[in-house]
This record gives sequence, C-alpha cells and structure tokens, in this order.
Amino acid sequence: MVDDLSAIPPEIRTLADYEKHAEACLPAASWDHIQSGSGSDSALRDNRAAFDRWRLLPNVLTDLRGASTETELFGRAHVAPIMVAPLAYQCLAHPDGEMAAARAAAALETGFILSTLSSVSLEHVAQASRSAARELTKPVAPLWFQLYLQPDRADSLTLVRRAEAAGYEAIVLTIDAAIKRSEFTLPAGIEAANLQGMAKPRQHSVAGGHILFGTPLADAAPTWADVEWLRSVTDLPILLKGLVTGEAVDRAVASGVEAIVLSNHGGRVFDGFPAALDVLAHVVARAGHRLPILVDGGFRSGSDIATALALGAKVVLIGRPVFHALAVAGLSGVAHMLHILRTELELAMAQLGCPRIELLDSGRLLPHRQA
Amino acid sequence: MVDDLSAIPPEIRTLADYEKHAEACLPAASWDHIQSGSGSDSALRDNRAAFDRWRLLPNVLTDLRGASTETELFGRAHVAPIMVAPLAYQCLAHPDGEMAAARAAAALETGFILSTLSSVSLEHVAQASRSAARELTKPVAPLWFQLYLQPDRADSLTLVRRAEAAGYEAIVLTIDAAIKRSEFTLPAGIEAANLQGMAKPRQHSVAGGHILFGTPLADAAPTWADVEWLRSVTDLPILLKGLVTGEAVDRAVASGVEAIVLSNHGGRVFDGFPAALDVLAHVVARAGHRLPILVDGGFRSGSDIATALALGAKVVLIGRPVFHALAVAGLSGVAHMLHILRTELELAMAQLGCPRIELLDSGRLLPHRQA
Amino acid sequence: MVDDLSAIPPEIRTLADYEKHAEACLPAASWDHIQSGSGSDSALRDNRAAFDRWRLLPNVLTDLRGASTETELFGRAHVAPIMVAPLAYQCLAHPDGEMAAARAAAALETGFILSTLSSVSLEHVAQASRSAARELTKPVAPLWFQLYLQPDRADSLTLVRRAEAAGYEAIVLTIDAAIKRSEFTLPAGIEAANLQGMAKPRQHSVAGGHILFGTPLADAAPTWADVEWLRSVTDLPILLKGLVTGEAVDRAVASGVEAIVLSNHGGRVFDGFPAALDVLAHVVARAGHRLPILVDGGFRSGSDIATALALGAKVVLIGRPVFHALAVAGLSGVAHMLHILRTELELAMAQLGCPRIELLDSGRLLPHRQA
Amino acid sequence: MVDDLSAIPPEIRTLADYEKHAEACLPAASWDHIQSGSGSDSALRDNRAAFDRWRLLPNVLTDLRGASTETELFGRAHVAPIMVAPLAYQCLAHPDGEMAAARAAAALETGFILSTLSSVSLEHVAQASRSAARELTKPVAPLWFQLYLQPDRADSLTLVRRAEAAGYEAIVLTIDAAIKRSEFTLPAGIEAANLQGMAKPRQHSVAGGHILFGTPLADAAPTWADVEWLRSVTDLPILLKGLVTGEAVDRAVASGVEAIVLSNHGGRVFDGFPAALDVLAHVVARAGHRLPILVDGGFRSGSDIATALALGAKVVLIGRPVFHALAVAGLSGVAHMLHILRTELELAMAQLGCPRIELLDSGRLLPHRQA
Repeated sequence: MVDDLSAIPPEIRTLADYEKHAEACLPAASWDHIQSGSGSDSALRDNRAAFDRWRLLPNVLTDLRGASTETELFGRAHVAPIMVAPLAYQCLAHPDGEMAAARAAAALETGFILSTLSSVSLEHVAQASRSAARELTKPVAPLWFQLYLQPDRADSLTLVRRAEAAGYEAIVLTIDAAIKRSEFTLPAGIEAANLQGMAKPRQHSVAGGHILFGTPLADAAPTWADVEWLRSVTDLPILLKGLVTGEAVDRAVASGVEAIVLSNHGGRVFDGFPAALDVLAHVVARAGHRLPILVDGGFRSGSDIATALALGAKVVLIGRPVFHALAVAGLSGVAHMLHILRTELELAMAQLGCPRIELLDSGRLLPHRQA
Repeated sequence: MVDDLSAIPPEIRTLADYEKHAEACLPAASWDHIQSGSGSDSALRDNRAAFDRWRLLPNVLTDLRGASTETELFGRAHVAPIMVAPLAYQCLAHPDGEMAAARAAAALETGFILSTLSSVSLEHVAQASRSAARELTKPVAPLWFQLYLQPDRADSLTLVRRAEAAGYEAIVLTIDAAIKRSEFTLPAGIEAANLQGMAKPRQHSVAGGHILFGTPLADAAPTWADVEWLRSVTDLPILLKGLVTGEAVDRAVASGVEAIVLSNHGGRVFDGFPAALDVLAHVVARAGHRLPILVDGGFRSGSDIATALALGAKVVLIGRPVFHALAVAGLSGVAHMLHILRTELELAMAQLGCPRIELLDSGRLLPHRQA
Repeated sequence: MVDDLSAIPPEIRTLADYEKHAEACLPAASWDHIQSGSGSDSALRDNRAAFDRWRLLPNVLTDLRGASTETELFGRAHVAPIMVAPLAYQCLAHPDGEMAAARAAAALETGFILSTLSSVSLEHVAQASRSAARELTKPVAPLWFQLYLQPDRADSLTLVRRAEAAGYEAIVLTIDAAIKRSEFTLPAGIEAANLQGMAKPRQHSVAGGHILFGTPLADAAPTWADVEWLRSVTDLPILLKGLVTGEAVDRAVASGVEAIVLSNHGGRVFDGFPAALDVLAHVVARAGHRLPILVDGGFRSGSDIATALALGAKVVLIGRPVFHALAVAGLSGVAHMLHILRTELELAMAQLGCPRIELLDSGRLLPHRQA
Repeated sequence: MVDDLSAIPPEIRTLADYEKHAEACLPAASWDHIQSGSGSDSALRDNRAAFDRWRLLPNVLTDLRGASTETELFGRAHVAPIMVAPLAYQCLAHPDGEMAAARAAAALETGFILSTLSSVSLEHVAQASRSAARELTKPVAPLWFQLYLQPDRADSLTLVRRAEAAGYEAIVLTIDAAIKRSEFTLPAGIEAANLQGMAKPRQHSVAGGHILFGTPLADAAPTWADVEWLRSVTDLPILLKGLVTGEAVDRAVASGVEAIVLSNHGGRVFDGFPAALDVLAHVVARAGHRLPILVDGGFRSGSDIATALALGAKVVLIGRPVFHALAVAGLSGVAHMLHILRTELELAMAQLGCPRIELLDSGRLLPHRQA
C-alpha cells in the first residue's frame, strides 16, 4: 500500500525538502493558509527558533543493542513518541486528505489525531485507519479525536459519542482557538464533514456596536466549566490542547483531565504567545508526575524531537509537515515523511547514546548561546 | 459619516498594511519626513524591536462575559486605553488633516490629542470633534491639547487659554523637542495654524561663533521652572511628555503634574534614547500610585498594546499609523485603523483571559530570549 | 620541493581566500561533500560562530626575544600546536591526495594524522612523509593513524599492526561516526586503500522492518569495551576523537587512553552537537592534569588557534582548509596554507605578548557580547 | 579660510554622509587601505557595534544657560573633548594631506595629533597649524606628536627633539603596531616625510627559516624598557596608545606616563582585539584618578562621543572620518566634519541635560539589550 514511492521526488530526504516541494503542488491560497501564522508571525518564527536555543550532548560509546523508540501513554504502547497532530481540512492538501494521512499513519503504526474540522467524517477515517493496519497485518495504532466545543452543547456531546462509537481512544480538547481571526475561505467541495447539520460557530461582528466583547462569540468561549462538563460525560482520556503556561496545570489536574498538549497552535492563534518549547521545561516541572505533557510546534527533524523529549515531553505532534507530504505525494508522502522522522529519531538517540526514550533527559541538553 | 469605506483597499487588514500602502499615497518628501528617525535611527528601530523582548501568557478558559476595554483617567471614562498622539501638520498626509483625524477619533469614541503644530486651528478641531460625536449620537471622547512652550511666555499662555476656552480637557506639555535638528520644509499651504502672529522659535546657528550653547535657543530651552509656571496658570490636568527615565518622576510629582507620557518622540529627537517600552516597567515602579504613566512609540497592534498595559502603562498613544491611515483613506482610514486596533486589543484580551484592562498585569508577561 | 608556489594565485593570503578559490577547482559533488554539514547545518555554523564569542587581550610591551611556538606531546616536540586532521579520501581534492598533504606537512615539520579512509595506503603515506623530511633535511614530524573500528575486530587489529609497523606514533580512535547518514558516492578511482579485502561496514536499512535499532549496524556500534580492547592490543598512545562532553573524561581516563580530541566531526555527524570550542573550557577543567585535550572544528586563522590554546587546548587540528589548499594548489597549497597559519599564530602571540605557548591562558580572553 | 564650503555636496549632513561620498573621490587601493581592518574584520566591526550596547538617558528640563563643551588636559584647555587622531599618510586622501587637516583643526580650535608617518614634515605641519590660528585670530589649539619607535633609538630621539623644537605639546607613543601585516604599497610621491634618512623598520620574512619569532623585527618590538627610556629623555607629557586592557594600567602609572589612549588601532592591527569602548568602563575604573583615559575607534556622531564620555573617557580621537572629509573636500571638508561633530555633541549634551562635560557620567547610561 505505501510502497508506491515513485511519486516522491528522489531529492526529498528531509522534512525541509517536503516543505520546499509542497508550495508548487498547491493553489496559492491553500499554501498561504497552511503556512500562515498570526499577526506579525512572531509565534510562528519562535516555533522554529526555539530549537536553536539548545544543543544535544552525546553519551559516547554506549551499547545500542536492544535499543527502541517505544513509549507508553494511557496504558497503551506507541512505537515512537510521535503522533500526527489534529489538522483541519486535510483535503486542502490532497484529494484523499485525512483518509490518506490516517492510512499512512496506520502503516507506520503511528498515532493519529483527527480534527473536529476534518474534511472526511470521523467514522470513515476510523475505518480507513483500521483497514490499513489489517491489510498490512500491523497492530492498530492509537487513534484520538480532537474536539472543538460547538455552540450547542448537544452537538459537542454528539461528537463525543460518535468518536467513542467509532473507536477513538482519547479526546483532545482544543481550548485556544475559540476566538481568532481568519480570512481564509474553504474551496468548493471541502467542508467540515463532522459538523453537518450542526449550528455554526458565530462570527464576531466587524462593524458598529460591539466588536468582540459582548457578542455571543465571546460570551460562549469555553471555560473550565466546559472542561468539567466534558469530564462528566465521557470515560475516555481527555487532553487539554493549547496551553503555554504552567499556571493552568493545577487547575487542569483538579478538573480531572489526563494530559496536556503544550501548543501555541502552530503560531496561528495569537502572535504574542511563546513557543511551546520555550516553556516546556517549566511546565513539565510544574506538572511533575501528575500529568504527561505532549507538545507541538515547529518539529521538523529527529533532533528537534530528541530536544523536546530531553526537556520532558512525553510525545511530539507533527502538524504542517503532514500537509507538505500530502501535497507532494499523498499517502506515500505522509508514510515517507513519518519514516524519515523515525529514522532521524533513531539516529539522534544513537548519537546521544540513549537506547531508550526515558534516557533522553536534561543531562543531554546544553543551553546554546547564539550570540 | 465613517461608513464610506470604499476608499479603503480591501487587502488592508492591519496597521502594517496601512503603512505599506501609505508610501504610494504621499509625496516622497512628506513620506520621508513622517517615517524618519533621528541620526542612526537606533531609537526608531528600538521602538519596534522592544515589543519582541516580550511574549504574552494566556489565562486559559476564562469566562469572557461582561468583558470590556473601558478604562478611566482624570475621573473620565475612556472606551479603551488608546488615544491619538499629538502629530504635527496632519495636512501633510491628507488635505483634511486634523479635521479628518479628530472626527474619526470622535466616531470611535477615542481620545484625541491635538498638537500645537496643528495645520488646523485648535478651535476648528474641537468643534469638528464635537459635531462628529453629536451627529453619531455618541458620547464626546476626551480631547487634549499638546503644548510646545513658545519663545514668549505670553504666547504660551494664550495657547493655554484658547485650549481651555475650546474645551480641551488636559494639557500635554512636550519637553523633549525644544532642541533638535530638522531639515524638512513644509509644503506651501501648510502652516502652524495655532501660532499665527506669534514669535517663531529661534533657530540655532550653523556657522561661526556659538553653535548651540550660548544661543537664545539653548538659553530658552524649557526647565522645571516653566512646568511650575504652567502649573500655576491652569487648572487643567498637565501631562509631561518626552521622558524616558525614572529619575524625573519625583520631580514631576513635586511639580504638581498629573501624569507622564513616556516617549522618545517616535525616535525623532535623539538616536541615543531608549524605547519607552524598554524603560516602562522601571518608570511605572518608580511612579507607584503617584502618577499614571502613558506611553507611545512603535505601537502597531493589539498585542503591542496588551504588552504595554501588562507592563503597567495606563494608556497608549498611536502616532505614525494615523498618518498612514490618513494618507490612504482620510477620515475613513483613521476610523478603520482605530477599529482594527480596538478589535485586536479585544482579541488579545480574550486570548490572555483578561476580560478587564486591570487584569493585564506582569503575570501575563514572559521575557523573550531572542537569541 | 615546496618552492613551486607559482600555482598559487597571488591574491591568496588567508585560509578564507583558499576556501573562496577552492570551489572553482572541484567537481560540484566533491565540493558539496567537503563543505557539507549534518541536517540543518547548525553544528557546522556553530564551529565558526564559536570563535566570535571571545576576544583576545594583549599583554603589552612584552619582550619577544627567544619567542617560540614549540610545544610537546607524548614526550615528543611539535614545532607548533597545529596538526593536519584525519580527512577521508583526500584524492577528492587533488590527484596526489594524502601523498601531497603528508609531504607538505613534513616540509613544514607539522604533525599529520592519516585517516583509515585514506585514498592512499598508510604505508605509502608514511614513506612519503619520511622522504620529504629527509629530502629537506628536516626533523621527522609526528605521524599518527586515525582508526575507524571495522566490522571484524581482526581487521581493526590488522590496521593497528600495519600502522605500528609503518611507524605511526599514535592511534586516534574516532568514536562518533559509526552511525551517520551520507548520500555521497565516491567517484571512480577513489577508494579506501587501507581496507582492501576487509569486510565493509554494514548500511542501515531504509525500508520496512527495523530502521536502525535492531540492525547489525547499531548492534556493532563501538562501546567502551572496544576502547579497552584497543588499549590491550597496542602500546601506542591512544586518543579518543569525537567527544563534546566533560562526562566522558573520567571514563576515558579509566580506560587508559592518553588524550582526547574534542570534536563534533566538522559538524558532519549530527546537527544537534555543540561546537567543540563552546565546551572546551569545561572539558579542560574536567580533565585537569589527567589528559591533554586536542580540538578541531572551524579553525581558519592564527587568532582562532590562539583562542583555543587560551581556553586550554593542547593542539589544534586543521581539517577542511587542507582540502581547500589541496584543491587550489596541491602540495604547494597545503604547505603555503600551513605557513600562513604558523605566521598568523606568531603574529597573534606577538600581539598578545605571549612569547611561549604556555603563556596563552584564560587571562588573555575576554567574553565577547555580540548583541 | 574655511569658508569655501562650495566644494561640499549639500546633501552631506553627517559623518556617515562623508563616508558614503568619499569612496568615489579616491583610488580603489587607497579607499580599501583606509577602510580595511585586520583579518576577519571583527575588531573593525566591533568598533561600531559597541555603541549599540548603550542607550543614553536625558536629565530633563535642565537649565542650559552657560553650557559649554570645554574640557582640560595636562593643564591646557580644549574647546571640546575631541581631537584629530594620528593618521598616517593623509596625502592618500587629498593632495594637501596633513597641511589641510591641521589647518582645519586649528580653525575649529581642535586638538591635532600628527603621525610619525606623516606625508608632510612635522615642522611644516606645526607651522601651518599656528598660521591658521593666527590668521583667524583664534587661540592655538593643542598639537601633539605621535611616535613610532624607530629601529635605531637615536632616530627616535631625533624625532622627539624635533617635535619638542616644533612646539608639539605631548608625545603619543603607539605601542600596538610594531608587528602587523600590511600589503599596501604607498603610491608614488607619498612617503614618510619625518623619517627621511632614518633606518627603515625591518620586514618579517615570508619564506623559509624563521617566520617572525627570532627575526630582528620581533626582537626589536618595543617593551616597557623603551617607555622608561622615552620618559627619561623628554619632559613632554607622554600618552601610551594602543592598549585594550586594564592590566597594563598599573605598569603605565609606574613608568611615569601621563595618560592612556585606549584603542584597537581602528581594528587594523589584530582582529582578536576588543573594541576600546567595550573595555572602557573597566579600564577607567582601574585607572581611577591616576591617569586620564582617552579613546578612539568608530566614533561617527555626537551621541557616540557622549557615550564614551559617560563611560569615563576624557577625550575622543577621530580617525577615518578625517580621511573621508579630506577626500571629499580637503580643508573645508575636515572643518565641516569637525563642526558637525561639535554641533552634534552640543545637541547630545542638550538632550541629556548636561550643560558641562563632567556631568556626562554613568547615570546617563542604560545598557541596551539588543536581542
């Protein structure tokens, strides 16, 4: 299934190569939408710049026999601490969209998180993921559902129940994007497949009277009460996604969620936010053993992943590179991209003398003085 | 009145867009004059670079019902902590100059500070501001007068009395620009409308004998004695504008002024001066509860404003963007520009989980390590 | 022998000039291979940037009579603390490859380290080096052999015995490059002359099943046990090359090796590694008087060398500049390049008021605040 | 005399403007020689970058009546803490060379330091300087002689005696340039006018045998013994020029010299040296009240000068801008350039609220965080 690598230009060897090739494969508006950040793009730039604030130190001459990238979360094995991030409207990048990406992830036994704003229904994606695993006689990889709370709570509940029924194993509640600007219009034929028949999120007004404050959009922004409600209606593990502070950890623990995805939403929500990597060590220290901290934002290589793991992250989510690989070569592209990352992570662990994930710790980090 | 938005290019969505479009709308000499800084432009560059020394931290999942940008100064409500800075000769940017800018501010209920060097008389501007509010059945927004001390004290007093009579609610005394270089010549038809019949400021010599020291210009530079004199002749609140040090705060308090506008004069006076934002926290700490600190210099977005408020500023003044918006679309441009800023400030407050201005404090700030 | 300087363009006066001229002298693929770093090239860039983190302080008005660059290692005199680094396949840069470079080094009485991956056999190179010294009636300069452990230990032993027999005076065991990526294919006619008839290193798989971990390549990566084995089979001094941490020093001492070459392998192995210069002072302090620390990476001038010596390095290895000089002018180029470095080192020592190598210490260093 | 300003392009208003215009006025080789630094040019770049590490803080609303830039050194008044640095071969920039520069300095009552390597004899320059003052009925400004020690001590003594006889008021002994590289060849007609008939400095060999160490050049490099000798043969004040460390201060005091010129020789001697400005505060603290510290390197504006004075410098020397102004407009150019600097220094002092030089102290400085 993923063996049709002929669509992949032979000069592509890194995720940066995918990014370089993707632009030519996409309509300009889609490319701009995928690549864009918020405002001055400072959060977007930070997501990459943050990795350069660290260097990695080898533990030389270590025995690598029996080495493995395996890790565990919520009592479940992951072949590597890498998952596909919840990306909206993947059909923007390739006609097969989420179907291709989910199958590629399944082929690589890599966890996949489906966005509420999927261009394919959550049931179809779950089925595609399972078929791919079966077809390749591989174990079924973790499949999670990302939830945007809907204007009507009943619709949110419907999404949760559908995810549970389709076999999704966890709910990732995104809390940072209820209120943000977007000027992008979806092309014809692409829509939020999971939300058909549901009330649409309200837009904030753009002229006269109230601006944002005092409008239904602001009044309905999610609060801790919504987290508590979600906790009360499902037994699936819940992850809160979109935090960049340690402050929220205590409250998150108290609300009964199982994990946090540290994220500035790919720099797309607010240009004032720091990179998740820049606050990772602080948040991990605050969380202690109470909650695992997952992270996304700007990951493009195995050494990027090793850096985050050494700073205490449990799992890393891969976002825009999925779009880039989809655009270049669909299912094969995503599978190849994930294989590159896994290879690079193993190379990084070999260089660092860390045959197991838990050996990647702060002893492997050197602060990097750039100037 | 401000509904004629057809003059605004549809691709303009940010203040940076206005700046980009403005150059083509202006004679090169005016554009250069508006954009220029002093000497090596280091103060001008710092004004923008200073914002990148901070990131902003959300207080997630906060209830936004009842949120508001309202603030209060000198016992007077402001719909938001945003005012139009005192900009000289606004007819350089648009034939309607200060008339258009003041009306746009009134339409947005935004405070407006008129420069002594207005290209329209202070009486006309005050009248235009009030008519606009009446026409739109809006409350009258704060209207202040910026004072440059004149060579003859009697002329300074005349300006104060005229401002009082015209209903200006505060005097902003600019103290940093008595002595500076300028090679710009006003185009025909633009002049200092408020100063007709008054003695002109003396120029410093450029050849032979004394240079600056020992000339009437240097000998007449304003001193604390002038502040005390101004304090003695008017009951209006007085703000001192053009400070960038904490040292002056005690003396300012002792002299009986009501507030300080921290400013390096848009980087136009002296390239050795720091950005106001870089000294803001220090000056706010020095002032304590004795004096509110307003600030200007380089503000271009809602997150810029949120940063200054979190550092302790009471109100932010918007300068060059008024020129840019005037140049692009006159009154409608300025109204649109102010609306963008208000929208962005609300978005920032929503992202930061701060439904009220006073909740923006140092807990929302993270020092940003750029390298 | 090295007097034929007519091949050297007269405008070449520095190592940077050699680098600039070399590109035009080489096939693009060879040039790219020589210049390339790993991944994002951050380790490669750091190797140069690290020097700019220091400035050097003169000890003015010092008497320079009797000044000398001489130093001593393993009971052996070196005319200067400069050696030629072990560079693979020098025939990529010039048809005479290692023969030319070794002769040039001998002519300048400069220590030479031959790579296991030499394009000329170690016996021929040793002979060429000795003949050059004899011909010029110069003392024989130090000649060392760099060892990559071979898949079959018997082959490694054969290499050690051949090196001993050919008169090499030390073994430099490279420990950081067992596992790394390379897409470069050697041109026809260039091969690993020392390894004829030996088993080739295994490649890690690129599709299906195991990636790196679990493959013979990973399982056979060198460990401390291999160092102990090497220690047990030869009486030559052993240097471990490819460390960038202080952690490994204690273990290195315990394993009985004589020295460490601090190196990130020219930034070619892993882009997460720091520059050797950035960890040099820390590693020197950790080593104390137990082990001398040699260093390579990015050295291009006498002040670069002086900086490393002041940070505590015993000897500096010169890598890519040997390729550049070979490419431009073969033997004469390398001799000229080494002469430039020696001249610049003397100039630096004169400026710093250090007539002897051991006077270059931390008192000559000023941390440089770049921004 | 200096009123013929018609040769000065009207768009020249700053020293940066002179630099921009000068290139077109000079042969490429001369321009390159004047502008060049040593090695990687890092010392040259630092000389400018160092100013950006500071911002200046005003003392607002200060009374400027009676303000003056006057200062005092060796019991002698200077109209401002600005002198012309000793620049070799000024005829490279303009046919009138040192004659023009010295007359311009005299016209501005500015101290002038003549280089040993003057293209005009020291006697002619002294006479030109005095005539210019007389002609303009101005007080005679300070005139100093810069000394390079000659291979034969008798020649050095002759230079000192000639300088004394010609009325030079101090000797500036340059100690950092005895050994340095230069590939520049003087154009026909330009020579070291003061050294006719004296033994030439020895060149260091460039091929075979000794490089620098062991040659007469290195053996004759000046030492503290030479300073003590100079001290014993003249009663003129002696300044040591070319230090960038605090270490040398105690020894300098003990040797009986009167002052230090902190300098990295315009970045021309050794690229490892720091900028004088970056070590200024440290050296001033070390010197205390024992010795005044003068400084040069990269000064291009009044705020640059104010920064150095606030860091504790007594006087600032202006180097390359003299070449630039000579190249553009000869005597008038230098006079205009010095007038610009004086004007800018007065503007800076006015902005900083410092009506006297001694008020420029560390209270006016704010460290500038560039990133």
